[in-house]
Amino acid sequence: MSSQTPSPDHPAFLRLPPWVKSKLRPFAIPIIQKVHDWVETECIPAEPVMRAQLAQDRWKTPKLMHELRKKAKSLGLFNLFLPNHFEESPGLTNLEYACCAEIMGRCYWAAQTMNCHAPETGNIELLAKYCTPAQKEQWLKPLMEGTMCSAYSMTEPDRASSDATNIGCSLRIEGDECIINGRKLYGNAQWNPELGFYILMACSDPENPNPWNRHTTVIVPARSKGLTMTRNLTIMGYDHAPEGHGEYIYEDVRVPAANIILGPGRAFEIAQGRLGPGRIHHCMRLIGQSERAYELALIHAIDPAKKPRGKLIGAFDSNIERIADMRMGIDSMRLVVLNAADTMDIHGNKAGKYAIAQSKILVPIQAARIIDECMQMFGGQGLTQHTPLPEMWTYARFVRVADGPDAAHRHQVGRDALKAAEGFRERHKKYNERHAEICRAWGVDPGLGGRAIEDLL
Amino acid sequence: MSSQTPSPDHPAFLRLPPWVKSKLRPFAIPIIQKVHDWVETECIPAEPVMRAQLAQDRWKTPKLMHELRKKAKSLGLFNLFLPNHFEESPGLTNLEYACCAEIMGRCYWAAQTMNCHAPETGNIELLAKYCTPAQKEQWLKPLMEGTMCSAYSMTEPDRASSDATNIGCSLRIEGDECIINGRKLYGNAQWNPELGFYILMACSDPENPNPWNRHTTVIVPARSKGLTMTRNLTIMGYDHAPEGHGEYIYEDVRVPAANIILGPGRAFEIAQGRLGPGRIHHCMRLIGQSERAYELALIHAIDPAKKPRGKLIGAFDSNIERIADMRMGIDSMRLVVLNAADTMDIHGNKAGKYAIAQSKILVPIQAARIIDECMQMFGGQGLTQHTPLPEMWTYARFVRVADGPDAAHRHQVGRDALKAAEGFRERHKKYNERHAEICRAWGVDPGLGGRAIEDLL
Amino acid sequence: MSSQTPSPDHPAFLRLPPWVKSKLRPFAIPIIQKVHDWVETECIPAEPVMRAQLAQDRWKTPKLMHELRKKAKSLGLFNLFLPNHFEESPGLTNLEYACCAEIMGRCYWAAQTMNCHAPETGNIELLAKYCTPAQKEQWLKPLMEGTMCSAYSMTEPDRASSDATNIGCSLRIEGDECIINGRKLYGNAQWNPELGFYILMACSDPENPNPWNRHTTVIVPARSKGLTMTRNLTIMGYDHAPEGHGEYIYEDVRVPAANIILGPGRAFEIAQGRLGPGRIHHCMRLIGQSERAYELALIHAIDPAKKPRGKLIGAFDSNIERIADMRMGIDSMRLVVLNAADTMDIHGNKAGKYAIAQSKILVPIQAARIIDECMQMFGGQGLTQHTPLPEMWTYARFVRVADGPDAAHRHQVGRDALKAAEGFRERHKKYNERHAEICRAWGVDPGLGGRAIEDLL
Amino acid sequence: MSSQTPSPDHPAFLRLPPWVKSKLRPFAIPIIQKVHDWVETECIPAEPVMRAQLAQDRWKTPKLMHELRKKAKSLGLFNLFLPNHFEESPGLTNLEYACCAEIMGRCYWAAQTMNCHAPETGNIELLAKYCTPAQKEQWLKPLMEGTMCSAYSMTEPDRASSDATNIGCSLRIEGDECIINGRKLYGNAQWNPELGFYILMACSDPENPNPWNRHTTVIVPARSKGLTMTRNLTIMGYDHAPEGHGEYIYEDVRVPAANIILGPGRAFEIAQGRLGPGRIHHCMRLIGQSERAYELALIHAIDPAKKPRGKLIGAFDSNIERIADMRMGIDSMRLVVLNAADTMDIHGNKAGKYAIAQSKILVPIQAARIIDECMQMFGGQGLTQHTPLPEMWTYARFVRVADGPDAAHRHQVGRDALKAAEGFRERHKKYNERHAEICRAWGVDPGLGGRAIEDLL
Repeated sequence: MSSQTPSPDHPAFLRLPPWVKSKLRPFAIPIIQKVHDWVETECIPAEPVMRAQLAQDRWKTPKLMHELRKKAKSLGLFNLFLPNHFEESPGLTNLEYACCAEIMGRCYWAAQTMNCHAPETGNIELLAKYCTPAQKEQWLKPLMEGTMCSAYSMTEPDRASSDATNIGCSLRIEGDECIINGRKLYGNAQWNPELGFYILMACSDPENPNPWNRHTTVIVPARSKGLTMTRNLTIMGYDHAPEGHGEYIYEDVRVPAANIILGPGRAFEIAQGRLGPGRIHHCMRLIGQSERAYELALIHAIDPAKKPRGKLIGAFDSNIERIADMRMGIDSMRLVVLNAADTMDIHGNKAGKYAIAQSKILVPIQAARIIDECMQMFGGQGLTQHTPLPEMWTYARFVRVADGPDAAHRHQVGRDALKAAEGFRERHKKYNERHAEICRAWGVDPGLGGRAIEDLL
Repeated sequence: MSSQTPSPDHPAFLRLPPWVKSKLRPFAIPIIQKVHDWVETECIPAEPVMRAQLAQDRWKTPKLMHELRKKAKSLGLFNLFLPNHFEESPGLTNLEYACCAEIMGRCYWAAQTMNCHAPETGNIELLAKYCTPAQKEQWLKPLMEGTMCSAYSMTEPDRASSDATNIGCSLRIEGDECIINGRKLYGNAQWNPELGFYILMACSDPENPNPWNRHTTVIVPARSKGLTMTRNLTIMGYDHAPEGHGEYIYEDVRVPAANIILGPGRAFEIAQGRLGPGRIHHCMRLIGQSERAYELALIHAIDPAKKPRGKLIGAFDSNIERIADMRMGIDSMRLVVLNAADTMDIHGNKAGKYAIAQSKILVPIQAARIIDECMQMFGGQGLTQHTPLPEMWTYARFVRVADGPDAAHRHQVGRDALKAAEGFRERHKKYNERHAEICRAWGVDPGLGGRAIEDLL
Repeated sequence: MSSQTPSPDHPAFLRLPPWVKSKLRPFAIPIIQKVHDWVETECIPAEPVMRAQLAQDRWKTPKLMHELRKKAKSLGLFNLFLPNHFEESPGLTNLEYACCAEIMGRCYWAAQTMNCHAPETGNIELLAKYCTPAQKEQWLKPLMEGTMCSAYSMTEPDRASSDATNIGCSLRIEGDECIINGRKLYGNAQWNPELGFYILMACSDPENPNPWNRHTTVIVPARSKGLTMTRNLTIMGYDHAPEGHGEYIYEDVRVPAANIILGPGRAFEIAQGRLGPGRIHHCMRLIGQSERAYELALIHAIDPAKKPRGKLIGAFDSNIERIADMRMGIDSMRLVVLNAADTMDIHGNKAGKYAIAQSKILVPIQAARIIDECMQMFGGQGLTQHTPLPEMWTYARFVRVADGPDAAHRHQVGRDALKAAEGFRERHKKYNERHAEICRAWGVDPGLGGRAIEDLL
Repeated sequence: MSSQTPSPDHPAFLRLPPWVKSKLRPFAIPIIQKVHDWVETECIPAEPVMRAQLAQDRWKTPKLMHELRKKAKSLGLFNLFLPNHFEESPGLTNLEYACCAEIMGRCYWAAQTMNCHAPETGNIELLAKYCTPAQKEQWLKPLMEGTMCSAYSMTEPDRASSDATNIGCSLRIEGDECIINGRKLYGNAQWNPELGFYILMACSDPENPNPWNRHTTVIVPARSKGLTMTRNLTIMGYDHAPEGHGEYIYEDVRVPAANIILGPGRAFEIAQGRLGPGRIHHCMRLIGQSERAYELALIHAIDPAKKPRGKLIGAFDSNIERIADMRMGIDSMRLVVLNAADTMDIHGNKAGKYAIAQSKILVPIQAARIIDECMQMFGGQGLTQHTPLPEMWTYARFVRVADGPDAAHRHQVGRDALKAAEGFRERHKKYNERHAEICRAWGVDPGLGGRAIEDLL
């Protein structure tokens, strides 16, 4: 760990576009450098040790993780993701944090050492935004201090819950208690003893004529009676322990009504604010993963031991073109996501909705494609544990469905885009009016020359 | 199990192209039906039981597998893959067996119940083709009877072994023994006690001026002294137990010289004959997997519980188009592979080389794409163990690198294709000569009209 | 022109799959060879002369075309497309003719020399199938003899006429006359004096509750009063003279009621039978075009004058892989289309509907992609008139929208495919029932092992 | 024409990313608005009139163009492209001009009305950068005043001139004259009487051991003796009159040696500086074209007359997803190109080389894909002159080969990218060293945990 004096030539900034570099404040530059040095020195080289500790006790946070979190916290590298408009924030903008997130992405679990991992980030932001001081004291504080873990519980096995109005898990308020019944997928695993609570989205008012007012968000302590985790869900075969992805049954689970966030029926108000930044974090981390996959592929490309037909892998023109495609693909993704982060900084999360969706849709597909290409360039070893590529690919593939499959987002973008069509039609009408004037001025028969435009209206 | 009388309307034949149906002999029809009924009744419904037994004892062939193999053998469903020009063959053509292989592919391990799985198929064919009667008695017989398992050992970690002339594992003949030293990847795991031997490709004459005469193929008993399996290779995180993919060190492993197949330096002669049919089997099984993935996606598409925006998944036009693409993609693959099988039947494996490569290159990519699309149509659950899709995708992805990454095969196809270029140039010269005649006949200046063609030469 | 004795080694058969070769009857083989020699000797080398003649008199069939048609007819190479179940047929099956059509496709206008070009082929088949003897005498005979041209008139500018029930051009029967009013796109150009008539689809009974009974097909003489061609439509800038694509206004056009085909309200009955074979012809011709584009690219790849970075174009690994992709792409298309032709021969046009749609959707996209790649391999010259590639690409692109854009066909295929979903669900139910039995037999808790399957139902 | 007061809400800025908006100087804002209003009011609506005038006199600049150029010049909308570091520049940065270029791109010939069209832009920049005052007076001045046209002559028919060291057209200096012999492709057409001169790249010193010093750039007056234009090259059938693309023969063409730019043998010095900004202009114009194609598709999508299956085109989910893909595709391209322009502003053209190549490779492919999708959404009419889409597509396709095919650029990017591989290897070595330390600290056997990383080195 070094990086006392901030330097624009530091490798942490190497691939940032000039407009981003010029927006990084002197305050942020040494932080980004520290994140870089942290990941390079303490995380990536420790990967095999983390793996070894996890192999011994699968469903417990490894000692190494605990130690690294303690150390990162002491270095001021904790909760960096929380944007600077929150009072609890360490002070980075979304754009500045995005630069950190890419670096964190190079190691699958590095973000966790800095308390910047999903679902903690989204949950912390949600609690900071919508909780009462009392709720914050009880639930937000331990999360931010890193002494507790949380989960987010929304997806359901029996519904198309990517459309959240379909969520059916029932929440009934009786006196000062809520009673919850239903099935949930994809919250972190209860098996990890450090899991403290779930932020649950449930249906409390199914008959409400407004489908956006039917749902309630509530905090459910992790070891509530009646709450059973039936199994851990694997993702492409990976268990993602010790966090995991639980499959849950709620049977008459009772929770204090004081745990309701913002009030009954306001779950959508909450949900809308939650996901934007988290999606950007995922995307930047995927870019970091892609960069690392790309580096491994390039190291392989110049490996003197690997010479099919007597040539280095990287001496084949076809591979040279593939490398160019990867290089440009990664850099294009970065421009898209950094623009989304910047848009949020300037105009807010809501105005950034489109740019966030653009990232969410394009980046996971592109990252998975690039990592897949890297695996293929490695030949047979690329799919094995000889490289971290299979886990990287799986992460990218997972993000394609996390927070809704990309078709759902594409649909939303498309429907919003269609709203401009009427305006385009008006624009064309004006072209035609002006066209008639010009034809008159030049003595041209508008019927002849003009049909190309007219025919569209 | 039913299917006494063969019927062309049997579901086993549903998607076969007419030309294939008309080529199936009366002898083959009831066999294909029996394979179909076997997979439907004894394999697919038993998948969870197989999984449960494997979970208990990971590196041992499950009892269920043993029982199913015994039963399949008694039904005459054993070794069907061996083409009818071998005396040991049950009598199917490559084309007829290809129809069986697709059906087997619907369940990941169904082929094994019928002793039709890799690497056994390639090994059996190799031994049947090249071994002496004594070797056959010792090694081929137990394989065909299903009492022993074998592995194929070619890939190496430190070389670009997709170009097999690079293979470096050394074999030295001393008296009536061979002494072997080197490292190998990707043979089945020694950990399974039923593994009997490896068919190993090693370099016995590194100084031979002809690089195609430097290598020797030898049979290595699985528990030879000096042979260590350092770990099992995972494929995208899957261990593929109990067969697995071993990583091996050979240290002064001694094997009788009598185990050499065909004689020293003749490994390439053997290798060339080996892989063709096996590639076709893989491809047909991937088509079977794709069909099953497609079925699961369609069941999901009409699931009344899954209605984003109030519509069935299958009511979205975008999904309707995706389903059409899958349907056509699978059927196109089948035409390619069945044509390759038929070409081998008519003209032999060597003449079928191009059609086999075409299958090997196109099918795994297409199958992986289709299964990936099916996963995506499932949303979040598609990547979990709720469906068999992740394992299916992994199998398809694996075949893209097995027997050499597709770029290597594409390269070979491209270089062969380029050999036609000179002939095309001649053809164009003839066009130009004839063009001059026509111009004369019509009184047209050939310099004017003819340049378009001339310019190319 | 040679080819006295049929030979299986003749270049006409070089790339046919073995199963197709074995289906060609001795009767067909010399015909296919003659078509091959005709195109090689009389068509391709004459392309610049045809271009020169057309440049002089744009909207008249060139003399060269007239002469070639006369000669082809005398050689028995006329109307080959008409399948052998018609009495007027020269006797080829759809499969055999498909082999001819690929060869014809190598030259854009070669099919026309043999009276095998669109829309003549579809129109001849329609008239042969549905007309009265009197109608045949008047309209079919001159078409088959090649003394008259015809057009097909269906598309309309103001409707989504890819869904033909939308067709709005009105036909009113008054006494023994029909009166027609409306606008049409895409029939051949009236400007060519040899155009004899249109086969027009119009709406005669707009109030009929059955939308499939509202339309009537009628023959409209090309120079009818009230029928005006407002302009010729260009396709990607090409005018496709002298056939062209007219844009028409019908104003009180009067036609004898005797010109109605099959009777009023029966247009859909007629339309359904019409398009299948024509689509296959287009697809096979596109394969021929693709082969020729591929040959030009390969000639360029070994052009000693073109050496970027000192290497032949074809010495770049990336181009070698591209050539392999083209080679395999063309061959895969051919398998799809020949299977469709064969399916029509065996089971009829209706049963071949899916295979025809599969060809119609996949081939034009693939052909356009391959020709585009060939253009790119040529560099700057590839887009100019130095090669025929731009016209080839345009033809492939055009077929993507001709007879309906591919999305419409994909939609139809997808909706038909979805009909199988219920059956798949039943199949899965059976798996589950059998699964329960197997669990009982092995003493396994079906709830545990079985969920993977059950969850889908 | 309006736009007195600059407004950030003006439609000219609608789709600019926030970081770009914030970089536009008050000086630039009203200029961009004026460009927008100019194109909307004077160019797009006049397209049919321009087409009509061109149809009458194909190889002469239409009167309308002359008038518009005069008017644009008087409005201060002339030569905007010339970057502000030139003394002749109107003062925009590359980034600011890029915003103008997108708007110009909406109409194929709008840039020409503002003297911002290729090849004028590149030629003006070249002359401004490298000419003597006397040369500037004679050749640059009339170009900037818009009274003369120029061409750039580099490509050759008989060489792989995308690798410019292959250029073979010979230039011999005799006394104070140069004598030129050779063939050239792709300079503007001599047929247009306003063409004043060619900037020619020729080989003057073929034996020079340094291949980068063999070539000379010289100005050749358009009507020099011995210079013949043999034909105009069409691009996908379009003649691009009245500028066109000539094919030339130089036979003993004599030119004053004073016309040599910068001195003999310095052509590569000149060429390197020339193309960067021009590529960015092309790319931004293609984005403008794509936006307009997109608008036309959206207008079609809500056309109440077009309802296949009773639904608006834009009501099909599949089209909604396609629209989203187009929207995101266009916006992603814009981020890439604007970043390249900004990089040139900040770090200069040379440092921007990679970002320029990234634009040049990605944008034409993406733009062609999007415009193609728009054509397809139109159905049959999309390919005809009913819409400007075919010409737009052709322009995008053309840019894929202009200034070298994209494979050549991809190759260059890939080879540059590979230079980083050694550094990545060093980085990995450091990981491994640090890994060994961490293993020691935790008492883990590095041989076990560490292999994943080690295996790569």
